[in-house]
Amino acid sequence: MRMDEAKGEEGMKIGVLGTGMAGATIATKLIALGNEVMLGSRNAGSEKAVKWAQANGANASQGAYAQAARFGEVLFNCTQGTASIEALQSAGADNLKGKILIDVANPLDFSHGTPPTLSICNTDSLGEQIQRKFPEAKVVKTLNTVNCEVMVNPALVPGDHDIFVCGNDAGAKARVAELLKQWFGWRSVIDLGDISAARATEQMMPIWLRLYGALGVLHFNVRVVAEGGRSSQ
Amino acid sequence: MRMDEAKGEEGMKIGVLGTGMAGATIATKLIALGNEVMLGSRNAGSEKAVKWAQANGANASQGAYAQAARFGEVLFNCTQGTASIEALQSAGADNLKGKILIDVANPLDFSHGTPPTLSICNTDSLGEQIQRKFPEAKVVKTLNTVNCEVMVNPALVPGDHDIFVCGNDAGAKARVAELLKQWFGWRSVIDLGDISAARATEQMMPIWLRLYGALGVLHFNVRVVAEGGRSSQ
Repeated sequence: MRMDEAKGEEGMKIGVLGTGMAGATIATKLIALGNEVMLGSRNAGSEKAVKWAQANGANASQGAYAQAARFGEVLFNCTQGTASIEALQSAGADNLKGKILIDVANPLDFSHGTPPTLSICNTDSLGEQIQRKFPEAKVVKTLNTVNCEVMVNPALVPGDHDIFVCGNDAGAKARVAELLKQWFGWRSVIDLGDISAARATEQMMPIWLRLYGALGVLHFNVRVVAEGGRSSQ
Repeated sequence: MRMDEAKGEEGMKIGVLGTGMAGATIATKLIALGNEVMLGSRNAGSEKAVKWAQANGANASQGAYAQAARFGEVLFNCTQGTASIEALQSAGADNLKGKILIDVANPLDFSHGTPPTLSICNTDSLGEQIQRKFPEAKVVKTLNTVNCEVMVNPALVPGDHDIFVCGNDAGAKARVAELLKQWFGWRSVIDLGDISAARATEQMMPIWLRLYGALGVLHFNVRVVAEGGRSSQ
């Protein structure tokens, strides 16, 4: 039903930057929902991206970051956080201009082993760096606090649980909240404020990693519970 | 009932270091539960501590950090995170030796305005610094992810929600989990592992502060929800 809705009312052109787990999972889900998706990688014709496009039918294509960014009305940054700025520079500021850029990346630095540390944190964030570097993109940070399978299928985790959004453009943020519900079935979206709140969600990586260790499953999330209940958006 | 239990079976001598909101709230609750509590501050006879002791009956006393640390079988670090090491040095390594030191502090740095940043994070934590500095104390980090009124009364937040513990001494950690349940009524305690997991819980301060902004109430917490349910301790 959601698929038909999306096909009928909302079939969009979407550029997904990054061919890792998150990028492939999101791109595949968006295709299943009836959108046209171009998967972008450093160079057009990368083996992973070609394979993905071949497996996903006529609405799926692949190209360099710049091609995918030009193609999409809405863009996803699914590149590795430590390489995101470089990837987006390769995508080109002109191709990001005026567009919603959904940033799901975390600046995880594995160079000192595991658990990874954050390459940016506390007084800055990847979300903010991207917004500063590309002031004409409408950066919305979201989905970075859950595993990529949960991103596109929150029903994998039972009961109520929350996803966070933040960004400087209120309209873009509201639109993304709507898309999270329509595309993926998120039921509760908490608006944390401007893009500097990306510091807060990116710094949830350490607790995510520890909980993964403690729980032994990838499909989990948090529910925010408050005195007097709280109104979900 | 819990009060009687604590009085009958468990009346303990507890040293609470720090006379701020967290220290006073925890100390007052521990008195109400029938324990003997000494509230410690930089200098014996501080106005706040004297006032607290006078208001809390014969089981309440106050003194310098060293006196409170000597007094307690179990200790709470409720000092400001940026001053905790200094306070504990003043308490004296000999007075911490072999004891459970429940560290509820967060290294929040307000010197650059609000929201505060963390003075230690990512590759280290306050919990670890304390454990390194006082290797013979049994540091258990917990309660630092909720407001102090919720620390001692989790029922302020409706339904199920979780508190985290971490530390290097398994026995101390299990004992603290037990005390959290017995004293304060915590029902779900998640063990995140050794003291380095303090990085994860201390780095939840930014999301706590943003959620406080978004929700407008102090009494909230998170519930961890996982595929297939999860077993609470």
